[in-house]
Amino acid sequence: MTDIDTVRPLRARDVDTWAHTADVVVAGYGIAGVCAAVEAARAGADVLILERAGGWGGAASMAGGWIYLGGGTPLQKALGFEDTPENMEQFLLAAVGPGADEARIADYCRGSVEHYEWLVACGVPFREAFWGEPGWEVPHDEGLGYSGGENSAPFNTLAKPAPRGHVPQYSDKRPGQRSGGYMLMKPLAETAEKLGARVEFDTRIRRLIVDDDDRVVGVLATRFGERVAIRAERGVVLATGSFAYAQSMVQGYAPRLIGRPAAAIEEHDGIGIRVAQALGADLAHMDATEVAFFGDPQLLARGILVNGRGQRYVPEDTYGGHIGQATLLRNENQAFLVIDERSYEEALATVTATPFFRQPPTWACESVAELEAEIGLPSGTLQSTIEVYNRHAADGHDPVLGKKPEWVRPIGTPLAGFDMRNFTAGFTLGGLRTDLDSRVLHVSGEPIPGLYAAGRCTSGLCAGGYVSGASLGDGSFYGRRAGRAAAKDG
Amino acid sequence: MTDIDTVRPLRARDVDTWAHTADVVVAGYGIAGVCAAVEAARAGADVLILERAGGWGGAASMAGGWIYLGGGTPLQKALGFEDTPENMEQFLLAAVGPGADEARIADYCRGSVEHYEWLVACGVPFREAFWGEPGWEVPHDEGLGYSGGENSAPFNTLAKPAPRGHVPQYSDKRPGQRSGGYMLMKPLAETAEKLGARVEFDTRIRRLIVDDDDRVVGVLATRFGERVAIRAERGVVLATGSFAYAQSMVQGYAPRLIGRPAAAIEEHDGIGIRVAQALGADLAHMDATEVAFFGDPQLLARGILVNGRGQRYVPEDTYGGHIGQATLLRNENQAFLVIDERSYEEALATVTATPFFRQPPTWACESVAELEAEIGLPSGTLQSTIEVYNRHAADGHDPVLGKKPEWVRPIGTPLAGFDMRNFTAGFTLGGLRTDLDSRVLHVSGEPIPGLYAAGRCTSGLCAGGYVSGASLGDGSFYGRRAGRAAAKDG
Repeated sequence: MTDIDTVRPLRARDVDTWAHTADVVVAGYGIAGVCAAVEAARAGADVLILERAGGWGGAASMAGGWIYLGGGTPLQKALGFEDTPENMEQFLLAAVGPGADEARIADYCRGSVEHYEWLVACGVPFREAFWGEPGWEVPHDEGLGYSGGENSAPFNTLAKPAPRGHVPQYSDKRPGQRSGGYMLMKPLAETAEKLGARVEFDTRIRRLIVDDDDRVVGVLATRFGERVAIRAERGVVLATGSFAYAQSMVQGYAPRLIGRPAAAIEEHDGIGIRVAQALGADLAHMDATEVAFFGDPQLLARGILVNGRGQRYVPEDTYGGHIGQATLLRNENQAFLVIDERSYEEALATVTATPFFRQPPTWACESVAELEAEIGLPSGTLQSTIEVYNRHAADGHDPVLGKKPEWVRPIGTPLAGFDMRNFTAGFTLGGLRTDLDSRVLHVSGEPIPGLYAAGRCTSGLCAGGYVSGASLGDGSFYGRRAGRAAAKDG
Repeated sequence: MTDIDTVRPLRARDVDTWAHTADVVVAGYGIAGVCAAVEAARAGADVLILERAGGWGGAASMAGGWIYLGGGTPLQKALGFEDTPENMEQFLLAAVGPGADEARIADYCRGSVEHYEWLVACGVPFREAFWGEPGWEVPHDEGLGYSGGENSAPFNTLAKPAPRGHVPQYSDKRPGQRSGGYMLMKPLAETAEKLGARVEFDTRIRRLIVDDDDRVVGVLATRFGERVAIRAERGVVLATGSFAYAQSMVQGYAPRLIGRPAAAIEEHDGIGIRVAQALGADLAHMDATEVAFFGDPQLLARGILVNGRGQRYVPEDTYGGHIGQATLLRNENQAFLVIDERSYEEALATVTATPFFRQPPTWACESVAELEAEIGLPSGTLQSTIEVYNRHAADGHDPVLGKKPEWVRPIGTPLAGFDMRNFTAGFTLGGLRTDLDSRVLHVSGEPIPGLYAAGRCTSGLCAGGYVSGASLGDGSFYGRRAGRAAAKDG
């Protein structure tokens, strides 16, 4: 029918045949797409979801499943944690900036309890159990945990710590319940389909279709090599995920992530961003990246992490995403974990959700001087770092970085070193600029008629920093908004 | 005539009257604009420059005047410095990445000698004198100096050091020669006007004008509140500068610069970027920023700079832009200079181009422990940093950060501390993605017909890092390309 080697919009008058028509067309069947579909259907719209893969899920169903919610959710309350929207807002502003969209964060925090209840009403299961140990994920089926360093320095002094990582209950042992993210997607997909949302799998969007007034009225997609035009009577929702796998976009916008995508899927090729840019859509925070750090949190909290100059640079007991960002973005991806034998053995005896992060030490030494030389650090640097650390640790505190007293203990001998250079990878957080109704904004500031977006093809809550659960959080929250707004459009 | 509260393109068929017509219309009369005008006029085009201010100059004429050139320029040779395009390329790739546009850097380095000769032929004066001391600028009228840390760690081990900061000769004492940047602009503006380029001052572009095939055929501007449409028969060159003063763009793309613009002018409102985005133009490296550090290089080189944890983090004798980036982007803008009395007095006795950066110390102390406490650093941190530094300094080297031996000497007492927190400010480096002919690229990858751009409204040489002279360098170099290509268009 027409060229697909461009992301330029196609004019509706140049379309010969419409393969499908719906009120609301949702591109992408991950977390943002499914929530848009549910809400659009509930608002009375005839919904068609287009998914490039052969089934629902997107990156969400591969995820651990943290959803960042708070302000006093029933789960927080049941487990004895106090939280308010204002407290949550205060934390997020500190953790996800600088440059965070303050209006969006306030909006998200105020709507968070309702959003939790909505998820539960859709059938998402949360078990009333708290996981309090450092970790990237919960090890069993606990429903709540710290997922953003809320209880670690410096955030524990900036807002009252409250855990906000909500995890749908899953079980490795029960078939079809393979992760928290999967158990988030499954009931939502079932809800969408029960509400009558139709789905076309193996259908990949390529271009937007616009009428003569530049209103978005559909998408051009490909299905097994064939071009299909799909008409949207009320609106198109872009929910196609990040650009972590779009090499030229990563090079141009977020080059520190070159060669290290993670927690993203290959379908994340930035297409939603590019088709909207071709219509003059504005962008935001294109450099922002989540950065995972592949070290076991139980080991990290008990040791010290030093950079290529033998200096500590991050509280080792904080959220791994903060450690990842501090390592990749501020310390040239140079990281060495130093831990003494006693703490190492103690860590190994603990439960972790990420046993595959527990590697044997790179070096084992009888003295700090020996380890310093083995690692190849400038002479005296690690020794003086440990000397200062130990002096304060003897009093049970860490004035340099504020690691919590429970993890602070002088480092003895023998001791081990782990080479954790290049232990980072992540996904992109930047994307389309949208308003709080998930309308895609033109660079002029006005919404682009008929076009909505949510999830990681948009710039959501996070400007620079990241907390686990922010993506499933803003994807689901603003996915709903997109569905509702699109259903009422036109 | 039409709305100027939008940056959307205007259709040519909706224009009633064309106030001016030229072959090539250049928006912005700074360094990129003037070079575009000269080359377009030489290629036979009738050229019209539109400038928002009342005179030529832009940010360029306020600048110190470093132009980054090398690969064996006549000035480098005359002063005894060996350099090759390959060596220059090797340095730049290390200094301005990650994510630098390799093809552009190679292109720029290969064309650098010719570009120097072109500037000289246009009347830009360079005095055959070298300034070898650390500095942000040259103190007198020297024509050549290090302006990017080429002779400092780690770059001095990655490429053969060569000074590449070329400065047009100026004199405070002679009227009309007030800075190197001014003395770059003046002969170029005279050249452009001698070649017949016309200029409309007080004329501010608002929107692009496109024909029915989306080819750019003009601009809509305002002049003293009146709307004027200007027709471009062959092409429009955007040369409107950075977005350092566009608050919402800084917030959305480069939030670390919020509230701290410098070395930019208020006219830098991002308009060139936005009008092109509205046509689907692609962007690159929108987060990248030059970061100046307002500390005197002579003081810095002789002291040590520590962060809020009392740790050194950058070779103190390097280019101030590297110090600024390391401070703002990687050390939370926390910086304290520590220097002993003897070195302080030695520094004060030296010549500097930036005497206004020489402030009295914040603290003067008899011992390191006392200074550590006065600054409020965690106890033991500064002491151990100085102890390690002094131990190596006694042998005349700095294995931690590689400061050059000439600046390394044990820190004695009494000593002083300078509070240099928030001593940073800068301008934005990101912008439109262009090809090597300065054609503005659509997000689809193809050039946007009739549209060219150069200077700081484009993403030029620098992806993340910066060297002084890169902006006058790529602005002039790719400004020329834009002028030549536009003159031949259509």
